[in-house]
Amino acid sequence: MIDSAHYRFRQQRSFDYLSEHDLEVGVIVDVEGLRNRSLRYLCGHPEDALLFLFAAGRSLLVPWDVPLAHSLATADEMIPFQTYGRSIFSCIKTILEERKIKRAEVSAILPYPLVQTLKESLAGDVVRCHEGGIDETIDVLRIIKDSEEIKAIRRACRITDSLIEAVPGLFAARKEVTEVELALFLEGEARRRGAEGMGFETLAASTRRSYAIHCFPRFTAGPIGNQGLSILDFGVRFDGYTSDVTLTLARLPLKEKQEAMVEAVEQAYELARNLCTPGADPVVVGDRVQEYFQDRGFRMPHALGHGIGLDAHEAPSFRRSSSTGVRENRRIFQPGMVFTLEPGLYDPNQGGVRLENDFLCIDGGTEVLTSARILYL
Amino acid sequence: MIDSAHYRFRQQRSFDYLSEHDLEVGVIVDVEGLRNRSLRYLCGHPEDALLFLFAAGRSLLVPWDVPLAHSLATADEMIPFQTYGRSIFSCIKTILEERKIKRAEVSAILPYPLVQTLKESLAGDVVRCHEGGIDETIDVLRIIKDSEEIKAIRRACRITDSLIEAVPGLFAARKEVTEVELALFLEGEARRRGAEGMGFETLAASTRRSYAIHCFPRFTAGPIGNQGLSILDFGVRFDGYTSDVTLTLARLPLKEKQEAMVEAVEQAYELARNLCTPGADPVVVGDRVQEYFQDRGFRMPHALGHGIGLDAHEAPSFRRSSSTGVRENRRIFQPGMVFTLEPGLYDPNQGGVRLENDFLCIDGGTEVLTSARILYL
Repeated sequence: MIDSAHYRFRQQRSFDYLSEHDLEVGVIVDVEGLRNRSLRYLCGHPEDALLFLFAAGRSLLVPWDVPLAHSLATADEMIPFQTYGRSIFSCIKTILEERKIKRAEVSAILPYPLVQTLKESLAGDVVRCHEGGIDETIDVLRIIKDSEEIKAIRRACRITDSLIEAVPGLFAARKEVTEVELALFLEGEARRRGAEGMGFETLAASTRRSYAIHCFPRFTAGPIGNQGLSILDFGVRFDGYTSDVTLTLARLPLKEKQEAMVEAVEQAYELARNLCTPGADPVVVGDRVQEYFQDRGFRMPHALGHGIGLDAHEAPSFRRSSSTGVRENRRIFQPGMVFTLEPGLYDPNQGGVRLENDFLCIDGGTEVLTSARILYL
Repeated sequence: MIDSAHYRFRQQRSFDYLSEHDLEVGVIVDVEGLRNRSLRYLCGHPEDALLFLFAAGRSLLVPWDVPLAHSLATADEMIPFQTYGRSIFSCIKTILEERKIKRAEVSAILPYPLVQTLKESLAGDVVRCHEGGIDETIDVLRIIKDSEEIKAIRRACRITDSLIEAVPGLFAARKEVTEVELALFLEGEARRRGAEGMGFETLAASTRRSYAIHCFPRFTAGPIGNQGLSILDFGVRFDGYTSDVTLTLARLPLKEKQEAMVEAVEQAYELARNLCTPGADPVVVGDRVQEYFQDRGFRMPHALGHGIGLDAHEAPSFRRSSSTGVRENRRIFQPGMVFTLEPGLYDPNQGGVRLENDFLCIDGGTEVLTSARILYL
């Protein structure tokens, strides 16, 4: 468990941002349809609340479930969301008016009509909302993991590795394993080994479905691990922090084209690993790996990797721009960043190959945290 | 499987809305962090795509995973998201410019900075964005389920009921059942019985945690079903459509206060059922149930129920306003609506009681689709 002092420290860093930008309050929202794990990062409350950060040095949590907040959250003040008729609009408007706020910034994930209506209903240009503001400040904090966070990630990765080691035994023990059996085996074992849950819905795709990057549905009752290439992508969550690995299950004999795909992915993975040193630019590393694939007649249809932490996808990004595409969003690798590398190739006729492990950026290079591999059945 | 003709019909209804409002195109987006199941409703593509609906009668899908779209989606045209550097901003801007669009409406779930930047970069007031527009039109379609949708919901509910029936046996067979065992038993059995997956993360809360409405984490390694009140809330997804039920597990003897809570919830449930007839207003029904509780010294800290379908929470809402709170959002019950009723009471010292089943509004009343109950262990 992350203790209260850590949350206080993170809130203080947000107060500093607000003061530096002459803002009186920043508003973070996490509700259904607008998930934002920065809420949990800042105060420990897992979800469904608004968090008001006042530059003067106080935090106000407006949670949906008050008893839950009392047992989990660190905040100077709490008011039930129900007080505002469970309306995000009324909650923000009322609090800004009652406290006579002149300059506020709301999270850039809020929908256009909500922010526009707030701007119109609060006279005098009170409400600001832009990418690169308060959310970005928190992302910059989140991108460098502290010792407690790294401890949680290591626990998640250790459980992940113990599950990877158990997979061959499952196939050895049975004549046939289905996608659903494999997925539920992992999800059950993860919990039995102390995980809070899975980091995201497990993806188990047999040879017939592995050509789709995130196949749909994520798993079915059909067999997996037949001759050819199957994919298994999962993450384990511990104290909020998730791992994210992908195994390719290769049942021999492979076709020549499939062997070439496996070999290209393994070599691209080694290339990527060696390039990810402090000071390197993830976007440039991604470009280099894509060039490597293209020189061999392949194309990788997704990003090379992504940061992990409270979110299964977070900063650093390997893409040139923010998720909306509104602004450029480049980071260079620094010690304390945790990220995946996951080169992959997909072909409707041959299936898919992806190899994904988690890395911690350290002085002079990277430490690999998980041990996923191409698993020959 | 919902067939292509259904998607064509739904798209046509969207074209009609656009024509009526003198709009040339409507833009629906579903990407990570901005989930919108109207994408699947309109074209069958499950997630990660932009859908452009042209009033002239054509649909354009911009999917992240093209092979997946080719196997699942119904659209007149497809362009890979990658074409636009995986930027939502570039994708919308480029397509509107290339096709010389003068009046477009984008989904009201899009973030403020994205819509503001689009408005600024496309001269002449091209981009509109407001609650009550294209999203609302699709919500109005989605609120009345067609025969194929009701078939899928009935299948989800049938599997749900078979799981409910299996719960007592699990407790009878073991000296102790943990939250994780119970949750994973349901999740495994659901898949074995043909479900696509769960509708949302199963919530299994023992007597010590059941006071929190949506306890966190959703389940732990601790025992469930001990003396007192435990809660089990789960949903089964079939062909995209989810059920949603809650059982209270009551291990006797209960304390007097706990018995009073159970009795109040059961009576509130019967009251609610009888009030939900075609023509009734869900908000008024919710108020009546809240009054019933208040007359007995209780207070229900959440809404009485909600619509279900492709989303675990969708229209009709039992709340006065939209989820952002920007506008009023009332519906009256009509045949074809599917919704939950879930009165609940929670007390940090006594635990929680909730009873939730799914209902189909029919001529003259409701049909109950599931058979959750207070389960005495």
